Amino acid sequence: MAKEITKRSEDYAQWYIDVVLKGDMADYSPVKGCMVIKPNGYGVWENIQRNLDRLFKETGHVNAYFPLFIPESFLKKEAEHVEGFAPECAVVTHAGGKPLEEPLVIRPTSETIIWSTYKNWINSYRDLPILINQWANVCRWEMRTRLFLRTTEFLWQEGHTAHATHEEAEEETFKMVNVYKRFAEEFLAMPVIAGKKTDHEKFAGALHTYCIEAMMQDGKALQSGTSHHLGQNFAKAFDVKFQDRDKELKYVYASSWGVSTRLIGGMVMCHGDDNGLVIPPKLAPLPVVFVPIWRSDEERDLVLGRARELTCDWDLPFFKIDDRDQYKPGFKFNYWEIRGVPLRVEIGPRDCHNRQVVVARRDTGTKTPVPMEGLRATLERMLDEMQRALFAAANERLECRTFTLDDYDEYRSAVEEGGFFRIHWCGNEDCEKRLHVETKSTIRCIPFDAAEESGKCLLCGRPSTRRVIAAQAY
Amino acid sequence: MAKEITKRSEDYAQWYIDVVLKGDMADYSPVKGCMVIKPNGYGVWENIQRNLDRLFKETGHVNAYFPLFIPESFLKKEAEHVEGFAPECAVVTHAGGKPLEEPLVIRPTSETIIWSTYKNWINSYRDLPILINQWANVCRWEMRTRLFLRTTEFLWQEGHTAHATHEEAEEETFKMVNVYKRFAEEFLAMPVIAGKKTDHEKFAGALHTYCIEAMMQDGKALQSGTSHHLGQNFAKAFDVKFQDRDKELKYVYASSWGVSTRLIGGMVMCHGDDNGLVIPPKLAPLPVVFVPIWRSDEERDLVLGRARELTCDWDLPFFKIDDRDQYKPGFKFNYWEIRGVPLRVEIGPRDCHNRQVVVARRDTGTKTPVPMEGLRATLERMLDEMQRALFAAANERLECRTFTLDDYDEYRSAVEEGGFFRIHWCGNEDCEKRLHVETKSTIRCIPFDAAEESGKCLLCGRPSTRRVIAAQAY
Repeated sequence: MAKEITKRSEDYAQWYIDVVLKGDMADYSPVKGCMVIKPNGYGVWENIQRNLDRLFKETGHVNAYFPLFIPESFLKKEAEHVEGFAPECAVVTHAGGKPLEEPLVIRPTSETIIWSTYKNWINSYRDLPILINQWANVCRWEMRTRLFLRTTEFLWQEGHTAHATHEEAEEETFKMVNVYKRFAEEFLAMPVIAGKKTDHEKFAGALHTYCIEAMMQDGKALQSGTSHHLGQNFAKAFDVKFQDRDKELKYVYASSWGVSTRLIGGMVMCHGDDNGLVIPPKLAPLPVVFVPIWRSDEERDLVLGRARELTCDWDLPFFKIDDRDQYKPGFKFNYWEIRGVPLRVEIGPRDCHNRQVVVARRDTGTKTPVPMEGLRATLERMLDEMQRALFAAANERLECRTFTLDDYDEYRSAVEEGGFFRIHWCGNEDCEKRLHVETKSTIRCIPFDAAEESGKCLLCGRPSTRRVIAAQAY
Repeated sequence: MAKEITKRSEDYAQWYIDVVLKGDMADYSPVKGCMVIKPNGYGVWENIQRNLDRLFKETGHVNAYFPLFIPESFLKKEAEHVEGFAPECAVVTHAGGKPLEEPLVIRPTSETIIWSTYKNWINSYRDLPILINQWANVCRWEMRTRLFLRTTEFLWQEGHTAHATHEEAEEETFKMVNVYKRFAEEFLAMPVIAGKKTDHEKFAGALHTYCIEAMMQDGKALQSGTSHHLGQNFAKAFDVKFQDRDKELKYVYASSWGVSTRLIGGMVMCHGDDNGLVIPPKLAPLPVVFVPIWRSDEERDLVLGRARELTCDWDLPFFKIDDRDQYKPGFKFNYWEIRGVPLRVEIGPRDCHNRQVVVARRDTGTKTPVPMEGLRATLERMLDEMQRALFAAANERLECRTFTLDDYDEYRSAVEEGGFFRIHWCGNEDCEKRLHVETKSTIRCIPFDAAEESGKCLLCGRPSTRRVIAAQAY
């Protein structure tokens, strides 16, 4: 079965599609650009939701739900916003058998519908802050789509907060990009660079945008989460004012921030190998699978009985015993390997005799004999180790493939090979555009931790005060 | 604040709207027929999701996600289905700035998009059963909408299962309506009658539909969940066949089942009172609120300090300390009462002295002094008691207002007053329609537990073998 997967070294893009499809993560749909998220992929999304939602709640946020439909006129109220999103919108023109008086856009993001509502909720500084998040589907009509990475409809969360001051909104914007960084590193085992987007790359309607950027195994960047300081732009567009402590009427400040099912694509490209998916234990829908090995009915009863005994008081999403009669152990090994299950527990008649099992780790392939006594605790320790090892491996790749470069010719050939490049940039948009046109790479972000450093712009030679990260990106 | 709520006895419909709006459950939206689900309402939905999802998983189901968009031609493949749903559809005709080749319908339900996908997943009896559920938004263009009860867009779950035999599909259909009954009674504290819909009322495309029907405080029925046996209808429409053990190619059998945010409207109408919402403890976003009572800064430090001490190791969604300085205790009492928080803990300086608190129960209004020692356990016991009491009260209302009637004139006047009526019906659709036209009531279901009993149809006098439940309904 594994040989149905294209090797990463042969064709990375095809490898990705093979892994997503054969790993039962997703399927193509009859609707162009949309996808079906299969149970193995949706199980990862459920774990992302549960854990990220906890982080949101720990930082004081609550969930709510706003309509899917946005009156077309709302989108037009913020000039940059409509320019950014209108070309990608899907539009409902008919409903209930009749043409609509005003077309409704399927939300590409919810700033406009939410700020038209916040207008009714905010009168005084006492009503602030509002710290709301929404889990929802959104729609952006993309020309070139890729499973998980870029689909017409996708699932995401979008936080929309309202504040009395610029400083508070800024604090929130910065806090949330750091929540994303923490989530990416702790749960997805995916190291990221957190920083600020250039003005050219910021969200349509924001003062500025913070982001996290991850490196895939081909050295390309994947923007994995963004947090926007919206200033008073949407408050002004929807006339949302509050009476402050000083009795003055002021426009409200806003932030918005989101991550999407794209994270699943990042996880696949960060950890997968030529045998299929590798799912980080903390997000695995199924962390442990038992594959019992038998040749006779008698052996079958023995090994299955023992596997059931061992797990009799374990909670269910943690493990599964693959007791299917119609498949051989080798088939089952491949079946679960391609689906990325972190640990496989092999249990045969001799193992029963020796009161041990053999545990195979998905990422390293190592097989370790483990005593049946205390098995649950041993497995949990091994899952922890694997989680940390995945992060360490990804972090080492990130460090090994991050280069400091000051020569444009060198850059032009190096960037084709993938990797992150710390380059000097003068801050001028013309240089940024030239970089994109000539090298297909973009400035991914100005990292938060970039030290001040005098240098010359890689493109024009003018002075620069700090290095930015440039790379080709998904 | 409470006096802003219309009394139930004055205008039940207006009372409902008042409670939903003032209880911070939902708000109207700028998009006609859609609603904004506010944090207090969405918190209930999150608890519904978490608990119902657990019941689904315990019965072997997994979650997945299918596209929001359905090609118009798919809907037309099942004749009854399109007849039932086409008039209510919202249609996307333009996307990405261009007219679409084929219009896309926003899913009103997902049988068609899912069965067009199952065709690719099912070849052999080995691929069956498929037991998939989806949490999603759907859209049905309704003329007359009501917050939670009937909105253009709503949130729901829809299970879609595939089976090798009619018997298995039937078993699943019946199993899931019973899961709904259990959930309604254990979590919503809302007793329901489970039974079968008449052919006239069944789902468009089903062989038959099972349902649960709850009684609201005005005596009207609320259909609260449905489970459909779809037979081979969708398999035939989408040509989904499997090779059975006997090597024969056969069409697959199907079930589908769903509950929606309508359940929240049912909860409100089942338990709310003239002071606002009453949320059953098992679904309360906030089960316990502390209202500290002070007159001086010194007292403030004392009572807040003690409240924090008492709760220092409690988990957070369980309680909140309302330490707002700008509001008086009386305001806070009303604030949390109207929002349906099950238990209010009052703590004043004298309470601190006596090492006790006063606990007020939302449903009964009773105030009980409770020792600080072991407070958490006492509160949990009181929440359990309240959960059971809500069910018992609702069950008594259901029993008191369920009548057995055999005279049509008597029925016509009685049904106006609300209540469930056990009547004889011959099974003829003409009588069913006449009942609806003449009394605005409908046959809600043929209860599973209806005993065989000879009688005469309430309308035409022809023989009937069992009683059905009739009522006016939402």
